[in-house]
Amino acid sequence: MKAPSGQGIRLAFLLLSLAAPCLPSPLWKDRDSLMQQEKAHQTGGNLVLSRQEQQLSTKLVDLKKKEVEAAIATGQFPPSMHFFRAKSLIDQSKVFSILKRMPKGAVLHLHDFAMLSAGWLVFNASYLPDCHICFTAAGSVRFRFSRPRPPPAPRCSPWLLLGTYRRQLRDRVAEFDRGLLRNLTLVTDSPELAYPSQAFIWKRFEEVFLIASGLICYAPVFKAYFYRGLLELYEDNIQYVEIRAILPAVYELDGTKHNKSWSVAAYQEVTRQFVKEHPDFVGAKVIFAAHRMLNVSQIKEDIIAAMALRARFPDTLAGFDLVGDEDQGHSLWELKDALTIPYSMGVNLPYFFHAGETDWQGTSVDNNVLDALLLNTSRIGHGLALIKHPVAKNLSLKRDIPVEVCPISNQVLLLVADLRSHPAADLMAEGHPIVVSPDDPPIFGAKGVSYDFYEVFMAIGGMNADLRTLKQLALNSIKYSAMLPAEKAKAKELWQKKWDQFVADLSDSFLREL
Amino acid sequence: MKAPSGQGIRLAFLLLSLAAPCLPSPLWKDRDSLMQQEKAHQTGGNLVLSRQEQQLSTKLVDLKKKEVEAAIATGQFPPSMHFFRAKSLIDQSKVFSILKRMPKGAVLHLHDFAMLSAGWLVFNASYLPDCHICFTAAGSVRFRFSRPRPPPAPRCSPWLLLGTYRRQLRDRVAEFDRGLLRNLTLVTDSPELAYPSQAFIWKRFEEVFLIASGLICYAPVFKAYFYRGLLELYEDNIQYVEIRAILPAVYELDGTKHNKSWSVAAYQEVTRQFVKEHPDFVGAKVIFAAHRMLNVSQIKEDIIAAMALRARFPDTLAGFDLVGDEDQGHSLWELKDALTIPYSMGVNLPYFFHAGETDWQGTSVDNNVLDALLLNTSRIGHGLALIKHPVAKNLSLKRDIPVEVCPISNQVLLLVADLRSHPAADLMAEGHPIVVSPDDPPIFGAKGVSYDFYEVFMAIGGMNADLRTLKQLALNSIKYSAMLPAEKAKAKELWQKKWDQFVADLSDSFLREL
Repeated sequence: MKAPSGQGIRLAFLLLSLAAPCLPSPLWKDRDSLMQQEKAHQTGGNLVLSRQEQQLSTKLVDLKKKEVEAAIATGQFPPSMHFFRAKSLIDQSKVFSILKRMPKGAVLHLHDFAMLSAGWLVFNASYLPDCHICFTAAGSVRFRFSRPRPPPAPRCSPWLLLGTYRRQLRDRVAEFDRGLLRNLTLVTDSPELAYPSQAFIWKRFEEVFLIASGLICYAPVFKAYFYRGLLELYEDNIQYVEIRAILPAVYELDGTKHNKSWSVAAYQEVTRQFVKEHPDFVGAKVIFAAHRMLNVSQIKEDIIAAMALRARFPDTLAGFDLVGDEDQGHSLWELKDALTIPYSMGVNLPYFFHAGETDWQGTSVDNNVLDALLLNTSRIGHGLALIKHPVAKNLSLKRDIPVEVCPISNQVLLLVADLRSHPAADLMAEGHPIVVSPDDPPIFGAKGVSYDFYEVFMAIGGMNADLRTLKQLALNSIKYSAMLPAEKAKAKELWQKKWDQFVADLSDSFLREL
Repeated sequence: MKAPSGQGIRLAFLLLSLAAPCLPSPLWKDRDSLMQQEKAHQTGGNLVLSRQEQQLSTKLVDLKKKEVEAAIATGQFPPSMHFFRAKSLIDQSKVFSILKRMPKGAVLHLHDFAMLSAGWLVFNASYLPDCHICFTAAGSVRFRFSRPRPPPAPRCSPWLLLGTYRRQLRDRVAEFDRGLLRNLTLVTDSPELAYPSQAFIWKRFEEVFLIASGLICYAPVFKAYFYRGLLELYEDNIQYVEIRAILPAVYELDGTKHNKSWSVAAYQEVTRQFVKEHPDFVGAKVIFAAHRMLNVSQIKEDIIAAMALRARFPDTLAGFDLVGDEDQGHSLWELKDALTIPYSMGVNLPYFFHAGETDWQGTSVDNNVLDALLLNTSRIGHGLALIKHPVAKNLSLKRDIPVEVCPISNQVLLLVADLRSHPAADLMAEGHPIVVSPDDPPIFGAKGVSYDFYEVFMAIGGMNADLRTLKQLALNSIKYSAMLPAEKAKAKELWQKKWDQFVADLSDSFLREL
């Protein structure tokens, strides 16, 4: 092609500028269809909404756009900020208030000792009689209920009866209790200064569990904590939960220690009681979770224990997982001789592996996402690394294995700073199955799963995320739970009723606001 | 299936624990093949290395692993740190010193006024005769070469002759020059405090260009800056460059202003001179870049100008692009009436669009990645949003359109904090075509493209990135350049010679170290 002269071009421009400016160019002919394809791909993209739901969806997206525009104007978009600073802004969001009201189905990734606001542990549990405290050299504390005084704890001051100690503090009790509260969460004004690295924050994180365990493992507190935990989820409009439980020895006042069966039985009993008192809650199951720092022979014992527990509590014990800092612990591959035992024995022990909760790539731990799939995991916990593993990602897509996405946890534990760039944005855009989970809400200063839904709806799903996205996420949470088919059907029915009511109520409130 | 009793399980365990512990389980039978598939997918995964290259690759990966292990031990992994703090650590890295020596092929994403270390502007350009300075109310400066004194600049103090001013400063000149240097880069000890938001840092970023333009647009400085810029790239073992040039009016001492043609001719002339003096450098081309804040009719004028320039300088003017903060500027869709002019006229004006340099998703700007492809872009600048657009990503893969990945730029401009999580990690794992580019190295305190290669090799490509990855990236940079086939062949030949020498030399130095 001969290049036209500058003169010729100028002439052509004159002619062009006289023509209609909006003539569609053949370049764009596929644009609408390609954009439709992208919309169809994304989470919920193929869901058909009722007319009322469609109207509501439009209003909800409009509301989101307004909040985003306001955030751009102030330069403070909560999902781009650390949750500790964003929370008070989220609390003022209308979108958030709607998400709180929304029936969200199941919460599938939540830890046993991080279900219930830390305030309950300080202001209720630690005020029970016979609660002792000791102070570590590092400025932390340990709790122990006992009568008489418990035997000395290693690397801790002598035990003090907390009631007596508080009386001595007189008017400094409130300050002391605030200190305890600080010990039981990661919340702080300057997270960047307080937590300089992932390894560092994981130490503090595990310390929180250690402190809490002294309170929670006391038998009466254990049951009350779980009951109150279910209540907090119920009040956040959640219908069912699966908890990762490490099943440590629960103790009595006289020092008696219970075994794992006792704990599972307690979870079962409390769940039944709770469902009886809240018939619009479906139930709870337990995933026994061993610490990934344990060696192969210790994990073998836990696998054996898990199989026995599942045989004894088939309705309550859903399966097995490994917990703890993935970067520091053993890889699934290193533990393969333990983890393949059920398969070798022909026993069905479902796995729900944490995998890919790491920023490292190409390390043995980074292979966990693939190895979890090879071990036939039912879900992938976190799975941040999955998008760096196209072959594993295809495999999980083909097998319909969902990723449990925990945005706030990932942000607090320094895996993702700005939640707009959470790897799940990619998964959602591709329609890879996901469920939204809170991981350890009280430790992050959150409650239930609504805050995580906010991050997903406002940021990870982008501006295109609408009511279909939210409905699909709720439906996913039931579909990918460990419930039996009959339980799922019941949960779905119960959720659907609540959903219809939510849609009707919300449509009303939008109408009233007009 | 009947669940086995706890007793039965314990017995089975006893039997199992007697068996050989390493019996491969059928679960793992595909593991090696799946991991091989993942390796074959990734950037360079299908490249066949010579025996010497293979040996070198192994040593290089070992060296990387050592540096990563040391970084984990100290908690300071440079790619996870802000570049301003990481740079001094990178400078000590052996891997980095190897990457500096490596012939890296072409640099395809680099801006006209950000080619050369800022020190040259302060210590050379601003010391030339007839340089004037004025001070803005906001604490910034403007420069202007002129004889006699230039007409007053808007919103600036009266012009001072810099030579006279420096003499008055006496022993405070060094301090003053350090201040100028600070004005000409974004480098600071506390980037988090200095740059609270993307919008904020973009203002400072554009201010740097404004300050520099007063110096660089002076005709003698213009040519010298470009020559020195090529030299800095050449010394970083780069063989060819394409610069995004805004082609502003270059001026003479008497106030005469040159047009765009003059600037392109100057680039061409300086390039020819440089290549003559450095025959192992291939050349440079210019991509005319308009600011995306301009309106449709202004962009129409620039498109017309671009077509005319390309007609006049077919070997030098490679095409057209839009620059500036994507979130703040017009979307490609909004500018479509201007951008489709060449197509409507049957004129070939290649596009090299910045697209997807944003964290927002589902906005009109976020559609730029798709629209750039629909406008037949030859490459995608940044393309961070591409992984959130599976349909667009498939399109770019099918059409073999590479993404220009600029890790340090993305980190400094607050798009990605920890470079292990850069979206290009996903692209590299999938083998999507990419090239590595530095964007604006002097403004970030970097030099050439070696620092960006370091981030890609150490973090974005993960532990599996090896010499094949690096070789593929260098090959890509030539393949996806705007060079004509004959130019590419020449560049490839020249690069290959340098590469072979690099491999031989490096093998020798590894041998000597043993």
